[in-house]
Amino acid sequence: MNINPFHPDFEKPATTDGLFSRDELRLANRNSGILLETLNLDITPTGAHYLLNHFDVPVIADDDHQLTLNGAFDAPLTLSMDDIRAMPQVTEAVTLECAGNGREGVSPRSHLMPWMYEAVGTSEWIGTPLAPLLERAKPHDNVQDYVFHGADFGFDKGHPHNFARSLTPQDIAELDVMLVWGMNGQPLLPQHGAPLRIIVPGWYGMASVKWLTGIEALTTRFDGYQQAHGYHYRTVADEPGVPITRILVKSLIRPPGVPDWVSRKRWVEAGKITLEGRAWSGGGVPIAKVEVLADSQWQEAELTGAPGRYAWTGWRFDWQAKPGDHVLKCRATDAEGNTQPMESAFDVAGFGNNSVHSIDVHVDDPAV
Amino acid sequence: MNINPFHPDFEKPATTDGLFSRDELRLANRNSGILLETLNLDITPTGAHYLLNHFDVPVIADDDHQLTLNGAFDAPLTLSMDDIRAMPQVTEAVTLECAGNGREGVSPRSHLMPWMYEAVGTSEWIGTPLAPLLERAKPHDNVQDYVFHGADFGFDKGHPHNFARSLTPQDIAELDVMLVWGMNGQPLLPQHGAPLRIIVPGWYGMASVKWLTGIEALTTRFDGYQQAHGYHYRTVADEPGVPITRILVKSLIRPPGVPDWVSRKRWVEAGKITLEGRAWSGGGVPIAKVEVLADSQWQEAELTGAPGRYAWTGWRFDWQAKPGDHVLKCRATDAEGNTQPMESAFDVAGFGNNSVHSIDVHVDDPAV
Repeated sequence: MNINPFHPDFEKPATTDGLFSRDELRLANRNSGILLETLNLDITPTGAHYLLNHFDVPVIADDDHQLTLNGAFDAPLTLSMDDIRAMPQVTEAVTLECAGNGREGVSPRSHLMPWMYEAVGTSEWIGTPLAPLLERAKPHDNVQDYVFHGADFGFDKGHPHNFARSLTPQDIAELDVMLVWGMNGQPLLPQHGAPLRIIVPGWYGMASVKWLTGIEALTTRFDGYQQAHGYHYRTVADEPGVPITRILVKSLIRPPGVPDWVSRKRWVEAGKITLEGRAWSGGGVPIAKVEVLADSQWQEAELTGAPGRYAWTGWRFDWQAKPGDHVLKCRATDAEGNTQPMESAFDVAGFGNNSVHSIDVHVDDPAV
Repeated sequence: MNINPFHPDFEKPATTDGLFSRDELRLANRNSGILLETLNLDITPTGAHYLLNHFDVPVIADDDHQLTLNGAFDAPLTLSMDDIRAMPQVTEAVTLECAGNGREGVSPRSHLMPWMYEAVGTSEWIGTPLAPLLERAKPHDNVQDYVFHGADFGFDKGHPHNFARSLTPQDIAELDVMLVWGMNGQPLLPQHGAPLRIIVPGWYGMASVKWLTGIEALTTRFDGYQQAHGYHYRTVADEPGVPITRILVKSLIRPPGVPDWVSRKRWVEAGKITLEGRAWSGGGVPIAKVEVLADSQWQEAELTGAPGRYAWTGWRFDWQAKPGDHVLKCRATDAEGNTQPMESAFDVAGFGNNSVHSIDVHVDDPAV
């Protein structure tokens, strides 16, 4: 297998100073962001949730699909979708975010999917808790990693592989991982992992493997590409880096008023405007505070509740909009005291940018 | 109302030579293209159909929604969604394409949503024929235009307006326009126009007004912004231009093999590969022929049928893939003899680029 032809494409430096390459545009046209105007809703409408798919979406018939649990299990299993859907069903609102959300704001920028703010969404996921299924397969005492294998296959930096990620037994004990076959009251859509995926609440989206074909118990650490090389925080390219896990605290403003079609700048009438948005953190840690920067001062917003432990929290703030041009910002702090930085830290691949969201607003002067 | 603050943004020339501005990226992150790997399917999975929304998506409760038919009608009407859904129901597979699809390939490029090839999709639309409803409202004999008003509001080149488009009585007589409340067996999604929209089969997507609030019968021609100024073919900016109507003949190749994550280049094993894709034209004109350019010669593909009169036609072609780098192209011809050009014609706003689709493929040499 000759993989060299693809390799050089990844070595190109990203274009800088607000210009983007054709490869970046192709990724932006292919992957899709949340519609920011839906940030007043607890649950993102189906089809408006962000989508980041590394390879081609496999369209898999439900009837043909099986999940295999193999490796270091005493009671390995092969299950049909009917077997899986017969397990105890739970529905949980979970906020997912791509670890690369905000990459466009990290400078210098890596040559990957150029997310601005849109790679987030909340769905009601329908499935069953994963931990009891693993127990049923009787894992050996010395299991070090459970590997989740996806059906999606392709090349990344010249490495051909099926997308796969792992979680340790301790991760499984601490996280409420779900095996998922439905979304927002319907069967999973192909692009969200049909017929079967996992959801790892509180972690960035790369952990929530789609098109799940197998769970493999290993007595060594998993060294697959997306686990051992991809998805690490790095400040220089050749360091081992720190594995990406929990979502960092973040918040977004629902753009107020009405948009300009191309620039997406906002036009607002003068007077009282209720600003609103959503804030979230990782690991099930609740949001403690959201502040809004308007008229040069930070002011605390009202929190309006979350649809689930692992889902974002709504917020709102009444603003007296005075004629002129304004920049609005919001900043969330979680119950562990983590808060959003004003500027993004540097990361080689642009991961984990949770710096504050800004919106440009023009407030109309009724006298003009 | 002071609209000047937005106006200058539209006067910026587009960045050229394969670089894109931050405004263009924002639009690409917001609007979403079809996943090209679903081009083997008659019906695009819900959520993978292209989306182009000028303004913010209004989220409208079904219970509150009414459709008003007013203006030059003898029997004006106001209908609830229950009234509308009680009308005779039809389901029709219709291919929609954005008039700006392919804009990225038009040089020099206009500063609008930079679609490459992805602004197309086919859904099964559920609704009722529109013409009998217009007759029920008894239009005056001198009606010149029926205006379709959307709930979405914003600015375009400094002009604030609700999105609205019109069709003449002759258009209504010739086109099978549908009033639509469902899609792929489900209620319409907010971003596709819920609770009510029209579908104008065979025309570019701008005609298929979403979030429909009213149909107004005019005894003059409609001069709304999106009808009288927007959506015209122009070779110079200040000419009146030609209104955009029917979809031009076009075809796409489903990318064969497996992708490279960032560049989307394709890796294929040597040997027989069945290439496949979809081809379509406007106005209900069937596809007569699809040709594939491979190994320096055009060869005719097999047509595999269409799911409806206004929907795309599948095609396939067996290719003997030899090791090396290849560029594959496809070209459709419709039953009226219209065919795709090799290069895009110039249009000021990048509309109507139906030039041929190319895919870069690397065929593996098993001996390497």
